[in-house]
Amino acid sequence: MAIKVHGGLLSTATTRVLACLNEKELDYEFVRVDMLAGEHKKEPFITLNPFGQVPAFEDDDLKLFESRAINRYITHKYADKGTQLVFDDPKKMAIVAVGLEVEAHKYDPPASKLTWELGLKPILGMVTDDEIVKEQEAQLGKVLDVYESGLTRSKYLCGDTFTLADLHHLPTLDYLMGTRAKAVFEARPLVKAWADGIMARPAWQKVVAMRNKH
Amino acid sequence: MAIKVHGGLLSTATTRVLACLNEKELDYEFVRVDMLAGEHKKEPFITLNPFGQVPAFEDDDLKLFESRAINRYITHKYADKGTQLVFDDPKKMAIVAVGLEVEAHKYDPPASKLTWELGLKPILGMVTDDEIVKEQEAQLGKVLDVYESGLTRSKYLCGDTFTLADLHHLPTLDYLMGTRAKAVFEARPLVKAWADGIMARPAWQKVVAMRNKH
Repeated sequence: MAIKVHGGLLSTATTRVLACLNEKELDYEFVRVDMLAGEHKKEPFITLNPFGQVPAFEDDDLKLFESRAINRYITHKYADKGTQLVFDDPKKMAIVAVGLEVEAHKYDPPASKLTWELGLKPILGMVTDDEIVKEQEAQLGKVLDVYESGLTRSKYLCGDTFTLADLHHLPTLDYLMGTRAKAVFEARPLVKAWADGIMARPAWQKVVAMRNKH
Repeated sequence: MAIKVHGGLLSTATTRVLACLNEKELDYEFVRVDMLAGEHKKEPFITLNPFGQVPAFEDDDLKLFESRAINRYITHKYADKGTQLVFDDPKKMAIVAVGLEVEAHKYDPPASKLTWELGLKPILGMVTDDEIVKEQEAQLGKVLDVYESGLTRSKYLCGDTFTLADLHHLPTLDYLMGTRAKAVFEARPLVKAWADGIMARPAWQKVVAMRNKH
C-alpha cells in the first residue's frame, strides 16, 4: 500500500480526503501542488485529474480524483481499518448515502460560497461581497434547520455514530466557524454541539495542525 | 418488497430513479406528486423529504430521498438483479465512484441549467435566457471534451460496460438532445455515439414511454 494525496492544505476538497485517511488510521504521503504557480492546470497533474482540480489520489497503480469519490473508495477498500464510516447493511448504507448527497447538494453550495467570501478572500487580500454573504447565510440557515430537527432524533446526521456524511462537512465547517457565519450555526444549539463535537475529533485536529504548520 | 417512487415525470431526478429501477428489472409503484399544486412542499410529502423536493422513495419501511442516494441503495441492495451497474471490487467501484461525482459536480450543473432554459421553460411558457444558454453551453463543452478524450479509451464513461455513472446522465441528456444544445454533443463524435447508445437502452425507453403517456 502506498497512498499519495496531491493537493493544497487550504483546499477543502484536499482536507476532506486527509480527514478520512486519518480516521481510517492509514499512512500516506502528502504531495503539495503549488496552485498559485498553476501546477494543477498542467502536466503531470493534469494526467491525474483531467479537470485540473485538487486533490488527486494514488493508491499503488490506482489513480483517482474528486474528494467524495476518493473517500468512498477509502472507506470501501479499508473497511476494517480505523473508524467505521460507512456500512454494508443496505438500510444503514442508504441512510449514509442520503446524508452524503445532502452534504454535497444542499449544505455544500452555500457553505462553499461562504467559505470563499469569508474564509479565503480575506486571506488572499480580496474584498468580501456582503450581498452574497447575506443570501448564502439565509440559504445555509434553511439547511441547518433541517439538520437541527434531525439532531433531535440522533447524535450525528445519520444515526448515533459519526459517519462519512458528518466528516464531509468538516473542511467548510472549520473555515466558517472562524468567521461571522459562525452565528448561523450558533443559533441552532444541536447543530452547534454537533459541529463542536466533530471538529474536536483527533483525526480532524491532525489535519488542522498540519495546515497550521504551513 | 414494495417499492414506491413519489415524483413527477418531468423531473430529471425522478426519471433518474425510474431508469435505475428499470435497469434492475424491479417492480415499483409510481405515485404522482402534483408539483403545480405544491404537494411536494406540504404534508405528507414533507415527511418523506424535509427538503421538499421530488423524488421520495420507499422500500417497505425504508424511506429515502436524493435521487443519486436512492440509486446507490437500489444498486447495492439489488446487486444480483438486472443489469450490473456498480461493482464490489474496490478499484472498479472507485472508478464508477469518480464517474458518479463527475456527473454530479461537473456535468450536471451546466446540463441542468440548460435543461431548465431550453427544455422546461418553453414547456412552461417562459422565456429562455440566451446569455445563460451561451455561457452554460461553453461550460458543458469543456466537460464533454474530457468525456470525448476518455471515450477513446473505453466504450462507456467508466469502462467497457454501462454503469450507474452513465445512467445518471440520461434525464438531462434526453432533454438536451431535443434542443439546440444537441450541437454541443454532436460536435464530439464519440460523445454523440455514447449518448445515442445509452438513450436507446430499453430501460430508458420505458421511462420515455411512461413520460409521453402523461
